[in-house]
Amino acid sequence: MKFSSKIVKCPLSPIRKFEPSADMARAKNHKIYHLNIGQPDIPTPPAFFEAVKAFDTPVLSYAPSPGIPVFVSATLEYFARLGISLNAKNILTTVGGSEALGITLSTILDDGDELLVPEPYYPNYSTLAAMAGASIRPIPTSPEEGYRYAVREKILPLINENTRAILITSPGNPTGNVLSAEEMRVIADIAKEKSLFLISDEVYREFIYTGGKMSSMLEFDDIYENTIVIDSVSKRFSACGARVGVIVSRNPEFMTQAMKIVQTRLSVATLDQVGSAALYNNVDDEYFKSVRAEYKLRRDAALSKLSEIPGIVSEKPDGAFYIMAKLPVDSSEKLLKFLLEEFDDSGETVMFAPGSGFYASPGKGISEARMAYVLAKPDLERALELLKLGIEAYNSQS
Amino acid sequence: MKFSSKIVKCPLSPIRKFEPSADMARAKNHKIYHLNIGQPDIPTPPAFFEAVKAFDTPVLSYAPSPGIPVFVSATLEYFARLGISLNAKNILTTVGGSEALGITLSTILDDGDELLVPEPYYPNYSTLAAMAGASIRPIPTSPEEGYRYAVREKILPLINENTRAILITSPGNPTGNVLSAEEMRVIADIAKEKSLFLISDEVYREFIYTGGKMSSMLEFDDIYENTIVIDSVSKRFSACGARVGVIVSRNPEFMTQAMKIVQTRLSVATLDQVGSAALYNNVDDEYFKSVRAEYKLRRDAALSKLSEIPGIVSEKPDGAFYIMAKLPVDSSEKLLKFLLEEFDDSGETVMFAPGSGFYASPGKGISEARMAYVLAKPDLERALELLKLGIEAYNSQS
Repeated sequence: MKFSSKIVKCPLSPIRKFEPSADMARAKNHKIYHLNIGQPDIPTPPAFFEAVKAFDTPVLSYAPSPGIPVFVSATLEYFARLGISLNAKNILTTVGGSEALGITLSTILDDGDELLVPEPYYPNYSTLAAMAGASIRPIPTSPEEGYRYAVREKILPLINENTRAILITSPGNPTGNVLSAEEMRVIADIAKEKSLFLISDEVYREFIYTGGKMSSMLEFDDIYENTIVIDSVSKRFSACGARVGVIVSRNPEFMTQAMKIVQTRLSVATLDQVGSAALYNNVDDEYFKSVRAEYKLRRDAALSKLSEIPGIVSEKPDGAFYIMAKLPVDSSEKLLKFLLEEFDDSGETVMFAPGSGFYASPGKGISEARMAYVLAKPDLERALELLKLGIEAYNSQS
Repeated sequence: MKFSSKIVKCPLSPIRKFEPSADMARAKNHKIYHLNIGQPDIPTPPAFFEAVKAFDTPVLSYAPSPGIPVFVSATLEYFARLGISLNAKNILTTVGGSEALGITLSTILDDGDELLVPEPYYPNYSTLAAMAGASIRPIPTSPEEGYRYAVREKILPLINENTRAILITSPGNPTGNVLSAEEMRVIADIAKEKSLFLISDEVYREFIYTGGKMSSMLEFDDIYENTIVIDSVSKRFSACGARVGVIVSRNPEFMTQAMKIVQTRLSVATLDQVGSAALYNNVDDEYFKSVRAEYKLRRDAALSKLSEIPGIVSEKPDGAFYIMAKLPVDSSEKLLKFLLEEFDDSGETVMFAPGSGFYASPGKGISEARMAYVLAKPDLERALELLKLGIEAYNSQS
C-alpha cells in the first residue's frame, strides 16, 4: 500500500516538530516560555459564549453550506463598517482561515501550477499548495530590508506561464510586515496586468500599530475579479478554537466553482457560527483599541529586550503579533534544541519557531527565528532574557 | 484566469441542485415534505448543550490538532464498549465524517489512482476523490438484487494496477444495505489479498433494524494495516451541526502521513469536541434503543406506503435511514421537477433525491430515488401519499 506522493513530500509542521525536545525540558520540570505559536492569551469576548449559551434549538442541525444567514449578515456589516460593500453571494463561511485558503487553492490550482508568495511565509501555505498539486515560487526578501516585497522589479521576473496567483499576508505572519497603500497598489497592478488571482490573507487586519487605517485588497474595485480575501475570527477576537473564517470574492465564477467544494464538506459548526456572529455584532472599537494597545506595549518591550542581544537583526514590525529576527548563531534550529535539551536559567527556558521552516528556498532563514508576542509583558521580557542568556551559553560552547 | 480542471469537472451536489425548483413551489406557498436530505429530526441529547454551557475557559483556544484529550478518550471508550481496543494514536479528530474522508483520500491517492465503491453511493465521494486527483470505479449492483455487492466475482475483475482502496458504507447511504458478518469478511479478504486500503464509512453504525449486533471493520485484526474507519457524531447523536468526526486506523505510517494534513488545518472546533465528548460519556443504550425503534417504525410505515405504488421496486433496507427505490417513471429527475413546479395536492408536495446522482455509470439510476425517512410517521405517510399521487399525475400527462 502506498501513500499520496504529494503528501509524502510534505514536511511535518516546522512549528510543532520540536515538541519531542520540549517534552525533554518538561521531563526535567523546566518551565518553557512559549513564543513559538500564535495562540493569543487575550480573553475571548463574552458575547461569543453568551450567544452559544442562548442557543435553544433542540436539534443541532447542519448549517447551510455557505454559512448561517446571521453570521453572513454580521460579516457583511463588519466589511460595511470598513467601507467595503458586499452581498451574501460574496461570502463563503469556512472552518477558519485555513479551510478558506485550502478551498481557494483547490478551486484555482492544477498540477504544475505556481503560486507567488513573499518569503518567509506561513509554512502551512506549502502543504495546502502541494495538496492542490501546485508549488510555491517564493518572492525573496531579507531581514536587512525589513522583509519588504512589494517591488515590481522583484516580482515580475518570477511570473511565468504556470503562475496562477499571488498570495500575500498583510499584516504578515511571520514578519509583521504591513503593506502601505502604495505597496498594495503595486501588487494589485501586477495581478491585474498579468491576469493573476490575488489571494489576500487578512486575518490580522486589526493588528496594526502605526495608527494607520485598517485596509483590505477589497478596496480596489478595478481588480474585483482577481481578488480573493481570506479572513477569520480566530485572531481578531482571540477565538482560534471557534474555527470560523470566510472566503470573500466578487468573482461569480470563482464562487460557483468554490461552492462545489463548500457543498461537499457540508457545513461549518453551527454553534460556532452563532457565537462568531455575536462577536461581529457586539464587540466594539474600544475592544480593538485596548487589544492593540496591549500588543503594541508588548511589541515595544520585546524589541527593547531583543536590542540587548549583540548582533541581532530585526526591524520594527508594524502589525500582527510576530517578530522575525536574525539571531547571532549558526543555526536557530540547533539553538532551539540546545535551549530545550541542555539549557536552563533557574529552571526556565524559552521556545521560538526556527526560521528555516518559513522559507521555501533551501539554505535561507537558518539563523532566523519567529517569536510570537502572545504573553503578557513581564513573561515576554523574561522569555527574551532567557533567549539572550541561551544564545550566550550556546555560543560559548566549545 | 482559469480554475482547477478537477473542480470544473465536478458537478454541483445532486442532492441540492433542485433548490431552484423548490423555490418555485415555495413561491406558490406550497408545503414541501423533505425526504431529500439526511437531516434527522431527533433532538440532540441535552448532554451536548450542557457540556458546552459548562465550558468556562476565558480563551477559546486552538484544540490540539488530533483532538482534545477528553474527546479522544470518550471515543476510545465508545469503541471499547463495542469490543474494539484502540489507543489515542489510532484516532484523528476531524470536521465530521466528510473531513475524515477527505483527509484519508488525500493521504493515500495520487493522480490516476482508482477507488472501488459499490454503486449507488454518497455523491460527495466523487468530489472528494476528484480533489485528490483520483476517480471512482463503481462496483455495480441492482435494485432487483437489493443493491448487494459483497461478492468476490463482482469485485475482483475491477481491480487493476491503479486500484488503491475499497470504500464501503455500512449501513449504507443511499441504499440502507447492511453487510452481514460473512460479507464483511469477503471484503476484508479482498483488501488483504490485493494489498488495498479498506476505507469503511460506519457513521450509521447504530442504525440497524434486524436486531443484529453493531459491527465494524476494526474487528478484523488480520487487516489492521489496511483498515481506515470513518466515523462521526452527526447521525449517531443527531448532532450534524457539531461537525465532529474521526479517522480511526491502526496503520502507523498512514497516521503519520495523515497527521501532516491534520496539522495543516490546525484543529477542530473546541466547544464542539467538548459537547461531543459528553455525548459519548453520557448517552446510554436506552437512547439508541428508542431512536432505533422510532426509525424502524418509520421504515416500515414508508415501505407499506411505497408498496401501494404499482410497479415500484424496493427491497427492505436493514439500516441507516434511507430507502432507495426504482419508481415507475421514465426519469426521477423529470418527476421531481414536475412535483415541485407543476404538481400539488391541497397545496402540498414532496421532494426526494433523484437516483442518477448516486451513480458514476452513465445512464444508471435514472428511474431511482432516495428517500430519507427523517420525518415523524404521519408526515412521512403523507409525503409518500403525495409521491403516489404525483407519479399518477406525472404518468397521466400526454
